[in-house]
Amino acid sequence: MDVVTFGETMLRLSPPGHERVEAADRMDVRVAGAESNVAVTAGRLGAETAWLSKLPASPLGRKVAATLRAQGTTPEVTWTDRDDLRQGLYFLEQGGEPRGTTVHYDRQDAAVTTATADELAPAFVERAGYLHTSGITPALSETLAATTADLLELAQETGTTATLDVNYRRGLWSHEEARDTLEALFPDVDVLFVAERDARGVLDRTGDADAIARGLADEFAFGTVVLTRGEAGALAVRNATTVTQPVFETETHDPIGTGDAFVGGYLAARVDGGDVEDALAWGAATAALKRTIPGDVALVTRADVESVLADEHSGIDR
Amino acid sequence: MDVVTFGETMLRLSPPGHERVEAADRMDVRVAGAESNVAVTAGRLGAETAWLSKLPASPLGRKVAATLRAQGTTPEVTWTDRDDLRQGLYFLEQGGEPRGTTVHYDRQDAAVTTATADELAPAFVERAGYLHTSGITPALSETLAATTADLLELAQETGTTATLDVNYRRGLWSHEEARDTLEALFPDVDVLFVAERDARGVLDRTGDADAIARGLADEFAFGTVVLTRGEAGALAVRNATTVTQPVFETETHDPIGTGDAFVGGYLAARVDGGDVEDALAWGAATAALKRTIPGDVALVTRADVESVLADEHSGIDR
Amino acid sequence: MDVVTFGETMLRLSPPGHERVEAADRMDVRVAGAESNVAVTAGRLGAETAWLSKLPASPLGRKVAATLRAQGTTPEVTWTDRDDLRQGLYFLEQGGEPRGTTVHYDRQDAAVTTATADELAPAFVERAGYLHTSGITPALSETLAATTADLLELAQETGTTATLDVNYRRGLWSHEEARDTLEALFPDVDVLFVAERDARGVLDRTGDADAIARGLADEFAFGTVVLTRGEAGALAVRNATTVTQPVFETETHDPIGTGDAFVGGYLAARVDGGDVEDALAWGAATAALKRTIPGDVALVTRADVESVLADEHSGIDR
Amino acid sequence: MDVVTFGETMLRLSPPGHERVEAADRMDVRVAGAESNVAVTAGRLGAETAWLSKLPASPLGRKVAATLRAQGTTPEVTWTDRDDLRQGLYFLEQGGEPRGTTVHYDRQDAAVTTATADELAPAFVERAGYLHTSGITPALSETLAATTADLLELAQETGTTATLDVNYRRGLWSHEEARDTLEALFPDVDVLFVAERDARGVLDRTGDADAIARGLADEFAFGTVVLTRGEAGALAVRNATTVTQPVFETETHDPIGTGDAFVGGYLAARVDGGDVEDALAWGAATAALKRTIPGDVALVTRADVESVLADEHSGIDR
Amino acid sequence: MDVVTFGETMLRLSPPGHERVEAADRMDVRVAGAESNVAVTAGRLGAETAWLSKLPASPLGRKVAATLRAQGTTPEVTWTDRDDLRQGLYFLEQGGEPRGTTVHYDRQDAAVTTATADELAPAFVERAGYLHTSGITPALSETLAATTADLLELAQETGTTATLDVNYRRGLWSHEEARDTLEALFPDVDVLFVAERDARGVLDRTGDADAIARGLADEFAFGTVVLTRGEAGALAVRNATTVTQPVFETETHDPIGTGDAFVGGYLAARVDGGDVEDALAWGAATAALKRTIPGDVALVTRADVESVLADEHSGIDR
Amino acid sequence: MDVVTFGETMLRLSPPGHERVEAADRMDVRVAGAESNVAVTAGRLGAETAWLSKLPASPLGRKVAATLRAQGTTPEVTWTDRDDLRQGLYFLEQGGEPRGTTVHYDRQDAAVTTATADELAPAFVERAGYLHTSGITPALSETLAATTADLLELAQETGTTATLDVNYRRGLWSHEEARDTLEALFPDVDVLFVAERDARGVLDRTGDADAIARGLADEFAFGTVVLTRGEAGALAVRNATTVTQPVFETETHDPIGTGDAFVGGYLAARVDGGDVEDALAWGAATAALKRTIPGDVALVTRADVESVLADEHSGIDR
Repeated sequence: MDVVTFGETMLRLSPPGHERVEAADRMDVRVAGAESNVAVTAGRLGAETAWLSKLPASPLGRKVAATLRAQGTTPEVTWTDRDDLRQGLYFLEQGGEPRGTTVHYDRQDAAVTTATADELAPAFVERAGYLHTSGITPALSETLAATTADLLELAQETGTTATLDVNYRRGLWSHEEARDTLEALFPDVDVLFVAERDARGVLDRTGDADAIARGLADEFAFGTVVLTRGEAGALAVRNATTVTQPVFETETHDPIGTGDAFVGGYLAARVDGGDVEDALAWGAATAALKRTIPGDVALVTRADVESVLADEHSGIDR
Repeated sequence: MDVVTFGETMLRLSPPGHERVEAADRMDVRVAGAESNVAVTAGRLGAETAWLSKLPASPLGRKVAATLRAQGTTPEVTWTDRDDLRQGLYFLEQGGEPRGTTVHYDRQDAAVTTATADELAPAFVERAGYLHTSGITPALSETLAATTADLLELAQETGTTATLDVNYRRGLWSHEEARDTLEALFPDVDVLFVAERDARGVLDRTGDADAIARGLADEFAFGTVVLTRGEAGALAVRNATTVTQPVFETETHDPIGTGDAFVGGYLAARVDGGDVEDALAWGAATAALKRTIPGDVALVTRADVESVLADEHSGIDR
Repeated sequence: MDVVTFGETMLRLSPPGHERVEAADRMDVRVAGAESNVAVTAGRLGAETAWLSKLPASPLGRKVAATLRAQGTTPEVTWTDRDDLRQGLYFLEQGGEPRGTTVHYDRQDAAVTTATADELAPAFVERAGYLHTSGITPALSETLAATTADLLELAQETGTTATLDVNYRRGLWSHEEARDTLEALFPDVDVLFVAERDARGVLDRTGDADAIARGLADEFAFGTVVLTRGEAGALAVRNATTVTQPVFETETHDPIGTGDAFVGGYLAARVDGGDVEDALAWGAATAALKRTIPGDVALVTRADVESVLADEHSGIDR
Repeated sequence: MDVVTFGETMLRLSPPGHERVEAADRMDVRVAGAESNVAVTAGRLGAETAWLSKLPASPLGRKVAATLRAQGTTPEVTWTDRDDLRQGLYFLEQGGEPRGTTVHYDRQDAAVTTATADELAPAFVERAGYLHTSGITPALSETLAATTADLLELAQETGTTATLDVNYRRGLWSHEEARDTLEALFPDVDVLFVAERDARGVLDRTGDADAIARGLADEFAFGTVVLTRGEAGALAVRNATTVTQPVFETETHDPIGTGDAFVGGYLAARVDGGDVEDALAWGAATAALKRTIPGDVALVTRADVESVLADEHSGIDR
Repeated sequence: MDVVTFGETMLRLSPPGHERVEAADRMDVRVAGAESNVAVTAGRLGAETAWLSKLPASPLGRKVAATLRAQGTTPEVTWTDRDDLRQGLYFLEQGGEPRGTTVHYDRQDAAVTTATADELAPAFVERAGYLHTSGITPALSETLAATTADLLELAQETGTTATLDVNYRRGLWSHEEARDTLEALFPDVDVLFVAERDARGVLDRTGDADAIARGLADEFAFGTVVLTRGEAGALAVRNATTVTQPVFETETHDPIGTGDAFVGGYLAARVDGGDVEDALAWGAATAALKRTIPGDVALVTRADVESVLADEHSGIDR
Repeated sequence: MDVVTFGETMLRLSPPGHERVEAADRMDVRVAGAESNVAVTAGRLGAETAWLSKLPASPLGRKVAATLRAQGTTPEVTWTDRDDLRQGLYFLEQGGEPRGTTVHYDRQDAAVTTATADELAPAFVERAGYLHTSGITPALSETLAATTADLLELAQETGTTATLDVNYRRGLWSHEEARDTLEALFPDVDVLFVAERDARGVLDRTGDADAIARGLADEFAFGTVVLTRGEAGALAVRNATTVTQPVFETETHDPIGTGDAFVGGYLAARVDGGDVEDALAWGAATAALKRTIPGDVALVTRADVESVLADEHSGIDR
């Protein structure tokens, strides 16, 4: 496997259009999780990928695995029959401003919150090129925090490149909890992805973007730090060199999953032999494409990404 | 209030038609709960009704309350902000035989499982004509078992007629647990509704239907015992007299909630001044109508029920 | 034109599946009218047909005309800009037994209720082979009653065969009103279609089916009387000869419009040169097909009818 | 009751997306009326509200009442069985520019057009804090014009604050008719809401916005005049003091009902003890939220409004 | 007939919203073809129009004809029973930028590709005021290229004004193939419609827009050359005079078919007696309206176009 | 791999409910093919399965592969970029009797029709336990007929058990063509599945069911002959022993794919170590379940099948 990710994947239930959850009598059901989003994206762009997790042996759990398989990653799943372990859900309400888009989590007691490193197919980690997870995973339970530490350590030991996206979620933990837990994990992380907003708010960084990335790289000895900056693009520091990448203009139909698409594109480019500059470009192109696609997942093809990079798109292609 | 019910009400998520949950990318969302079904039905047929429960202060909880209000009962709800208390869900897959209709509960940690008698507006119980709940309620948590006992006792003390529908659910508890808990509640119950199947399987009754009803009435001093018998109709024993009621023929579009519709129709007739014979007839007519209506709830009118009783229906009314 | 029909055509709004109108938040919109149903059916089976009526010059009126055109008949419409004349609507709730299928009309002040014979393109009537209307038309307004009389008389004068389907609707008028009005029209009618139920209930006929048909033929000098008898099939009396036709077995997905499909099939066969026996067979086959098709209109092809008559159908054709 | 409103509420039928009514074969059904919109909005924001009207005792009428109940106001309805009184409808086609959004009314003979003051539960008016209606109501029929005058007078006599939103609809009456009728009602109105466009076009006002509001306040002795100015915000004159409020930026998914949302927010703030400045702010925030929500009704919560006022929203809340 | 068009009309299958074809489990089905789009548009604006083509005698072919009839043009169709001739399809994926809108053709072996001039009702061409086709038609097959030449020649002989829209599709042929074929047809064309982009890319024209149009008019002796220039509007050269027309601002819900709407509006104005200036204005107004309407076809009315020209539209019309 | 199948898989487009294709403006899109249906079914019941085929490198082709992967089989696909090779489609209209269910194929030039044995991953065939195809495959093109012969021969050589389902389709070839082609393949087939109807109609067999199966087994030296007999159940002859299996009663929501489900269940049981009796039972249970599930594919679980075999199902499971 080129890329192995682990984390929680939820069912996303959302009313059609901009309806309120309270008023909806139908919901669209999709499959969404930061780490599986990354695996799917990288997989569609050419990497061989797997997603490690734990799911309830129920129709809902099977739906998660089947969807990921369809979308292009291999779900390596520990199935549990325990009645008290659930499939995590989230309810999404897509409002416009000033209502905003609202996520209502219903993920407590998700099966994955009990997953230990042993359960999560560690052999896959050992043989993978990259191991990726996000800051959401250790936030979900003490067990998962320990599991995250164990798997990152295992990656470190076996030469698998460990990547982590900070991905702070205020619904899950406080800035302080996040910082403490994540900083303890950083020594085993090779590549850090972090939104500038989180670098400032959660990791307490100050200064301009470049200074933040360099500071993080220095302090925690990351091989690479990738700072995503919303409309301002992205920036990577590797070997004390800074590379920048502007965003591609995009029409946003569904913004959720943009960051995961970026990481998936980045990793696919690296697996493909690209350098950091290539990887930032693939990340940015994939992220721009994602925003045009409903759902959390970047259902893109390599041709789509290449077309964005070549700026070939021209309205209607017929 | 003529009829006050208490219990859990869930959101029901079901794929369109006969799709499998695993394969569905859309779900219909409805509101369903044995006791609120009864309240809605009785309310639509003329009784003034309320439903007592506890809900999370979330869009999902608000959806439950709003829907019940629309359907014709007053939700008297304790709202909770606790993050760890959920809105109960269930996923319904409507298969035909031999697949069967499958219910996948996702109701653990529902807010209502923490509801105490004090929270559930006991003043409403005191002033009500009828207090109704079902055997589902005490099965949901120890707290609810105690609450059920408290409210039934309160009804007994204040002269409110307490009614209970056994409503055994094998997904919630064993026959033995159910029998022990319910028999402890029976002394405070005036009217017992029980499916013949549950009377035999759960309450360990034997003999013919009449013998079962009489035996229960005698042993627990119920004012009335109503035995529902599926295709064989229903039978009530009151004051040592047996009344029987055949079923009305029906086309079944959604069988779920048939029993609740029966109880709602029965109680509405009693509130309206009808005797047990009238009440069985209303119950049977309402139950037959329910089976033609999608969702758990008998969205009927008094005119619908009267039309069934008068056998006026004739295909297409135009 | 082979067949010209006139009457009201409505928009039919119906909730999906078996939902109640009260609870529906979406409705399917279709186009439906007894006389246009007949025209469409006959048109699809080979006759050249037109439908005469009056519609509001509004999106709703245009929808009616466009749909009929698509389905295969020519709408010859007088368009009115009067603000106080509406497009007739009806709300359909498809219940199963014992709820029944319910039609809620919202057709008052329909533009067609003001249509005079002069407005309705009488030149079409003169040149047509058949002029068809139903007992619904004169029930809608005094103006339409007069218009019906005028057009039937015109047909009589110009040698156009006038056909009338009694089509009693209790929502529109009483048995007595219907009988009085229709019997006054009968002298100008050549072919009478009447359901046995209406012959008994509205036209006060008694005796067996054959006696009823013969009695009507004798009393009003109809060239042909066609009696439709539900599951018992149909029967026609022409030239003192009785022809009978059993029904074809059918799965019913939407029963509305069965009678119109029968008439359309009958007329198409007659236009095609068939005798009464052929016409009853085509009518019965078309009616059976209609019941499998959602909506009021028999969207059939000649090949469909021929397949039913040849009994070639065999489950899945692939 | 804190706020009682009266007027017509219609069913709104609209094709999905931007389809034309003429081409649509499905329609979404919603419930909409200027005055019930205000009641629902104020009710959701904390006021106790009722809506007075007259409805046909039909599935369509029941749908209106049920929906309002679900949305949070109490429908105090006179039900009529008269066959000739309808449920008002309107067909909405949501076009973009330059097609525009088109409303096709089908509301003639609505039951409410026959409602007298006696029928409309005048006891509710007497006990209410606020009585609200709009200029649409007296435009619907002579009876309603008289009823409006009667209820405003009753409010005046009983100390209920009477509020009126001019809400000019060119489909209902001319500028002159509107001005004559409304100016005759103004002496019994305490708070006037008027769009600057209508103040100029209908009430013949000239000068800048402040001069218009002050001129109206002086001439008709309104306690408060609130002038809504589209993108330019709103302005209120009370006790010879002018307060202004800019609009909140918003993404518009459905603009209909913006004005009603403004009034509902305004009234809720006043009921809550806010001053005119607070009320304008709540009005503006609620109006901005409304534009993000499909349907005519501002399905908002107090938390939503507070979030807009606090400018806390930030894209995706998770 | 005022306007007769010929060409291919396809079924368009597109996922709802912005879903990817790969992920869609439902598709909307519409009817679309450059030349039938023109006929429908002109027909709705007052011209009497027909569309000549060849279709398979199948449900899919019937759907095409029925839809065009509903939309307002007369399909004059040669029906074929040949099993190896298909109904052309195209799959449309509506992405936003940078994904773009993607058309996936599935039109090979379409019945129309075998249509000869004799099959296509040449009598209609002789009697028509205008004969219109587009550069798509001769690109579809050698047979159609010959047929196009034959019909244009026939038009020339019989005094029918022949109009051609270059409409280059890179999925069908190369620039060179297109130029060679089209230039061979130009001598029989009276009015040429060409996008500036195609004039440059395909016809190898250089210089400013006016020079291009004049150059084409001179070289090929066109009576009129209409150059469409996207956001820059349109320009026509007739009798050595240049007329220009800016675009009307529009919200784009579906851009496909804009050019056909322009041509349809242009031709309708000419048929109506308008001069080239009028025709450009109608074309531009119709094109602007089209972009607000889902589907390839400009489902507009004359009142819509007049409203745009009069600039009367104002947001919500009620 | 336990089971490898090869053949064509199509996209199935069908209108919702019982709508006619001609009148539908939406279609459901599913993935369907006799051989992939078998692979999916066997895969879901525990076998490791792959499906070999050739698909166009297009969104439609990718949809086929993704769906099969989601459903539980591994698509081993040769992707082609050739423009002239299509994704096969079929349009399904689900009528009731006497309309029947109609399949309209649009599969000509499907990519798979050009697949050679070399392209279809012959290594998979060599290593598989079972190789399955159906009589549809050789009917699709001469190339596929040769490919089928090649792969069956390869299976024979490498010890893979070759199974073939006659699956006659009259839309593809005549009885004679089918018989000639299939009988030439039979010597390399180990297990023959054939419907009694096809054994009689296509293979010209006479006598009772047992005689037919024995006759086929004798004449062509099949290891096993399985005769499916519709409502009469199934019968297998192996080693001169006859085993019979009645059908399980079922509610039919979608009959298409019943036969494939039977074969899939049969093979899964055999792979699982079951004998022919077990395999017939699994086949019959899976076939019964299939008929309750929309789409061509038996989306069943092993638990579902076991529940049918144990006759545990009882209406509503909750």
